[in-house]
Amino acid sequence: MVYLTRRMTFSAAHRLWSSFLSEEENYEVYAKCANPHGHGHNYILEVTVQGMPDERTGMVMNLTDMKKVINEQVVDWVDHKHLNYDVPWLEGVIPTAEMLAIKFWERLERGLPSGMLYEVKLHETENNLATYRGEA
Amino acid sequence: MVYLTRRMTFSAAHRLWSSFLSEEENYEVYAKCANPHGHGHNYILEVTVQGMPDERTGMVMNLTDMKKVINEQVVDWVDHKHLNYDVPWLEGVIPTAEMLAIKFWERLERGLPSGMLYEVKLHETENNLATYRGEA
Amino acid sequence: MVYLTRRMTFSAAHRLWSSFLSEEENYEVYAKCANPHGHGHNYILEVTVQGMPDERTGMVMNLTDMKKVINEQVVDWVDHKHLNYDVPWLEGVIPTAEMLAIKFWERLERGLPSGMLYEVKLHETENNLATYRGEA
Amino acid sequence: MVYLTRRMTFSAAHRLWSSFLSEEENYEVYAKCANPHGHGHNYILEVTVQGMPDERTGMVMNLTDMKKVINEQVVDWVDHKHLNYDVPWLEGVIPTAEMLAIKFWERLERGLPSGMLYEVKLHETENNLATYRGEA
Amino acid sequence: MVYLTRRMTFSAAHRLWSSFLSEEENYEVYAKCANPHGHGHNYILEVTVQGMPDERTGMVMNLTDMKKVINEQVVDWVDHKHLNYDVPWLEGVIPTAEMLAIKFWERLERGLPSGMLYEVKLHETENNLATYRGEA
Amino acid sequence: MVYLTRRMTFSAAHRLWSSFLSEEENYEVYAKCANPHGHGHNYILEVTVQGMPDERTGMVMNLTDMKKVINEQVVDWVDHKHLNYDVPWLEGVIPTAEMLAIKFWERLERGLPSGMLYEVKLHETENNLATYRGEA
Repeated sequence: MVYLTRRMTFSAAHRLWSSFLSEEENYEVYAKCANPHGHGHNYILEVTVQGMPDERTGMVMNLTDMKKVINEQVVDWVDHKHLNYDVPWLEGVIPTAEMLAIKFWERLERGLPSGMLYEVKLHETENNLATYRGEA
Repeated sequence: MVYLTRRMTFSAAHRLWSSFLSEEENYEVYAKCANPHGHGHNYILEVTVQGMPDERTGMVMNLTDMKKVINEQVVDWVDHKHLNYDVPWLEGVIPTAEMLAIKFWERLERGLPSGMLYEVKLHETENNLATYRGEA
Repeated sequence: MVYLTRRMTFSAAHRLWSSFLSEEENYEVYAKCANPHGHGHNYILEVTVQGMPDERTGMVMNLTDMKKVINEQVVDWVDHKHLNYDVPWLEGVIPTAEMLAIKFWERLERGLPSGMLYEVKLHETENNLATYRGEA
Repeated sequence: MVYLTRRMTFSAAHRLWSSFLSEEENYEVYAKCANPHGHGHNYILEVTVQGMPDERTGMVMNLTDMKKVINEQVVDWVDHKHLNYDVPWLEGVIPTAEMLAIKFWERLERGLPSGMLYEVKLHETENNLATYRGEA
Repeated sequence: MVYLTRRMTFSAAHRLWSSFLSEEENYEVYAKCANPHGHGHNYILEVTVQGMPDERTGMVMNLTDMKKVINEQVVDWVDHKHLNYDVPWLEGVIPTAEMLAIKFWERLERGLPSGMLYEVKLHETENNLATYRGEA
Repeated sequence: MVYLTRRMTFSAAHRLWSSFLSEEENYEVYAKCANPHGHGHNYILEVTVQGMPDERTGMVMNLTDMKKVINEQVVDWVDHKHLNYDVPWLEGVIPTAEMLAIKFWERLERGLPSGMLYEVKLHETENNLATYRGEA
């Protein structure tokens, strides 16, 4: 089993705000991340697939195909967008790094050959990131 | 003359849109950067001052003081904000990296000892940045 | 299960020296790392917790709380310190990256909610790092 | 169990070309990576060993020894070389990141104390990398 | 005057060899960089233009146009190529970082609006780079 | 004129303390940097020389020679040392990044061909650096 990772970047705005919380609780939990007009990040997304290299090509998966799937399933939807307003499949999702990693996993699993997706890492800033491996 | 640089980061949303241009021209010039709800970046701001080190302290300027000025004049105003709506002194400014570098220079020059500011570098993404040295 | 990582940095001095070894053996094992006055590093500490995101907040853990624990249990004790002399809970510990990772884990486990700590990564330089997951 | 990682770099040329494929298929699969004279990369190799720190030294393995093994088994053979022509033990191997990671693992396992090698990561560019842990 | 920088990357092979030197001298000067089949790098190219931001757009130059010029004049010619064999306008040029920076400047100056090009930086590895500003 | 830069790293301990200041003033100015046993950094040193590439070699200066001079004049003296106690030519110097950049310039100028040294950059952490170009 070899793991192959493709790194991609996108820039997006978001606001952390929960409909389960009062305005006061929202500011208590999210502090400046709850500011009304939102803020933004240069996200770094690292997608890892697993498999044995094909003997004829030496590849677990063609990086060109991998990039195409990541763009079609995730990056083209979120790049230069506001995550709270512009992405249908993020409707009702609080766009923390954790929740985005889970949602990106669900989208990527649909686009990639069955059983190949191993890990999604989403860096929100140089100081924090979320990792999801599809574990319940 | 020694140059001393302090790097700081902030996260903000912005939208590129010019009131001098028609809607069609705006999308032609700014493309996806003109999306209505904006997007965002992890900005990296590098501020450089110049001077001779003080013989008693070995410092051109105390980095603690430098950080305080950068926070008071710039970072506290823009961090976790939407640059088109939330910053009074950016009103009417198209928030490109170039324009932000100029505006940040003007703010920093006011807060720093006269003649010390040498350069403002503003990285918008890992692939582009603007540099301003106060030159006309 | 989602993994959430917070990266923090601190600067410290240390000297590698073992009381189990003779002076000659110490220099043989640690070479220039055994120099008497010590040297130092900009350490990068990456702490990872695991859990399911809370439905009401979308968070595995609030990054602000996480930062507070890491500061209280580790960073405030070691930042701008000499690891051989200034940290009571490192007394008698040879401050290699491996031993520090283990000690930091023990401190963090005490400060974090039970069962949440997943991994401690400690980068000593850009070329070496130790990882500890609490495995015996 | 603690994991200790040593990062090293080397620069090499390679060409992706498979003898199992026709010329047309080769260009279809590898695109510009199939250009006849090859291209090249600054590879980053991260080797991780596992073990308990020795009580007398605080070390899982001496980083100096680890560097020596990595040089002797891998880096001295591939640095400033063309991977398709200059490395006897890569003869007949399609030099994708995946295949190189497997071959490097085999070489390193031979040079390191039995059971210590945990992981080989090979970064080909800032955007892609392969990871191998010796799993069948 | 504001300076705007666009960073781009490409991967290429090269061999350092001078027709002015004997075989022995070549190996003495270039050492392993003279190996016959060449080696390669992930080059990082930073191109900086200078100007005043346009009042109507807030831009010194549209980054999309800048990227297009850099691709047409430089990156499309050198990416995934062997610099000694595949690039007509590098024929007879010893492909050191210094010489490449000069040649890239000449190409970029032709593609950019007159007087705008300020600086070309070419990183060959994480440890060395050449900078050219068109100075005689 | 082309500028050629070589990056090197070293790890050292230091303490900021001025004999011109009282103990109270020292802690006021240097805060935690004045802690008695010192702390340390992974310094990054970037040395830039200027010149025209030699027609026969395509080089401003051979990077191997440049590395040799930087090691002999600076890195071998400071790596894995305590800058306040172990370096004869830093005696009496307050080891701020600014003062170190000046002292390193003086040492490098002596080792390099006359007139070639252009710039010394010394990064103390990822957030601050000093630059010296020999200007009075």
